[in-house]
Amino acid sequence: MPPTITAFETSPDRGKGHARDMRVRWALEEVGQPYDVRLVSFAAMKEPAHVALHPFGQIPTYEDGDLVLFESGAIVFHIAERHDGLLPKHADARSRAIAWMFAALSTVEPPIVELTMAMLFERDRSWYAERLPMLQDRVRTRLGELSRRLGKADWLDGAFSAGDLMMMTVLRRLNTSGLLDEYPEIAAYLSRGDARPAFRRAFEAQLAVFTAASRS
Amino acid sequence: MPPTITAFETSPDRGKGHARDMRVRWALEEVGQPYDVRLVSFAAMKEPAHVALHPFGQIPTYEDGDLVLFESGAIVFHIAERHDGLLPKHADARSRAIAWMFAALSTVEPPIVELTMAMLFERDRSWYAERLPMLQDRVRTRLGELSRRLGKADWLDGAFSAGDLMMMTVLRRLNTSGLLDEYPEIAAYLSRGDARPAFRRAFEAQLAVFTAASRS
Repeated sequence: MPPTITAFETSPDRGKGHARDMRVRWALEEVGQPYDVRLVSFAAMKEPAHVALHPFGQIPTYEDGDLVLFESGAIVFHIAERHDGLLPKHADARSRAIAWMFAALSTVEPPIVELTMAMLFERDRSWYAERLPMLQDRVRTRLGELSRRLGKADWLDGAFSAGDLMMMTVLRRLNTSGLLDEYPEIAAYLSRGDARPAFRRAFEAQLAVFTAASRS
Repeated sequence: MPPTITAFETSPDRGKGHARDMRVRWALEEVGQPYDVRLVSFAAMKEPAHVALHPFGQIPTYEDGDLVLFESGAIVFHIAERHDGLLPKHADARSRAIAWMFAALSTVEPPIVELTMAMLFERDRSWYAERLPMLQDRVRTRLGELSRRLGKADWLDGAFSAGDLMMMTVLRRLNTSGLLDEYPEIAAYLSRGDARPAFRRAFEAQLAVFTAASRS
């Protein structure tokens, strides 16, 4: 039996690949592993059956036999440890790839989530006009630092790794922010990710869920 | 030669153990490994020599021979993989402990950082009175979910692990927020962490840096 992951029954991003199941789908496609998907509604995510799998009532989860995992970073790492293609063999390079996974989630994602959430939910607040540039500048700081490190390189540390996969899924959330236009190295980096066949397959699979839900 | 980590020359938390080098110090103490510390000023963190070690110009970093790592999560994981005491031997339990590391950093820490940063830097803003309860409620949501999962258990998943270490260092940032009083299970959980001899040694070591800087 292939592992089962969970994903939004109705993704708020309308199938643009910003939901966190995309990371797990992409990782599984990179290593050539099949998987099943169970869709969950927003209501079901907060019910005891799902909270038993994910204490914070979110997606994705990952079930494989007796093992239940939550957190996209942990699931991608679990897959990367068990299959070739997402982590270098050399011990130091492997540790650095893992560092980029943590950097994506701990250092780059939080200000991006704050910005995109404010753009969605704080537009009508009195403080929006004053806070928006502050939030954009926090993201610009990280994009500038990342861009300087990346330079003209194809990937963050030599070969494509789970670190790139996590970083690119985090950065793609900025697609509608306009900020990526200011960082051509990062835009080019994201294009390299989007062009990977495994990315395309994962993207089409999550888009198909949204398309089917829209038709029904 | 023991590994060298970096820490703030002058920690903004005044030695309360909230800076991220605390996580690395604690992990090294748990596994009984000696380490050297290099202190860096806020100015030096943004200079090329440090940015070569840490692309986002932060602390901690970790240098061991040819290996340079950044991100506290990645450094703690690197230590946990190489020494006994921070990750279970059983494969599934190990994956779950890693999931708690990611949960601490990706799901629990971001709203805590937002709250504590707003309490420090947004007190004089027109929106503070309106935003503060919103930020507190975001943290309460996570604390409630974590408290329900933890229940009366000593640790998040059976034995103490790097997942607990990361979660507890994240939660300790709430010490001055008053919110921990609302969650007795979490307060008791944190007390168990604080009582560990390795925690005490790490705490005293980082406090000694602050005390020495204050005297000079």
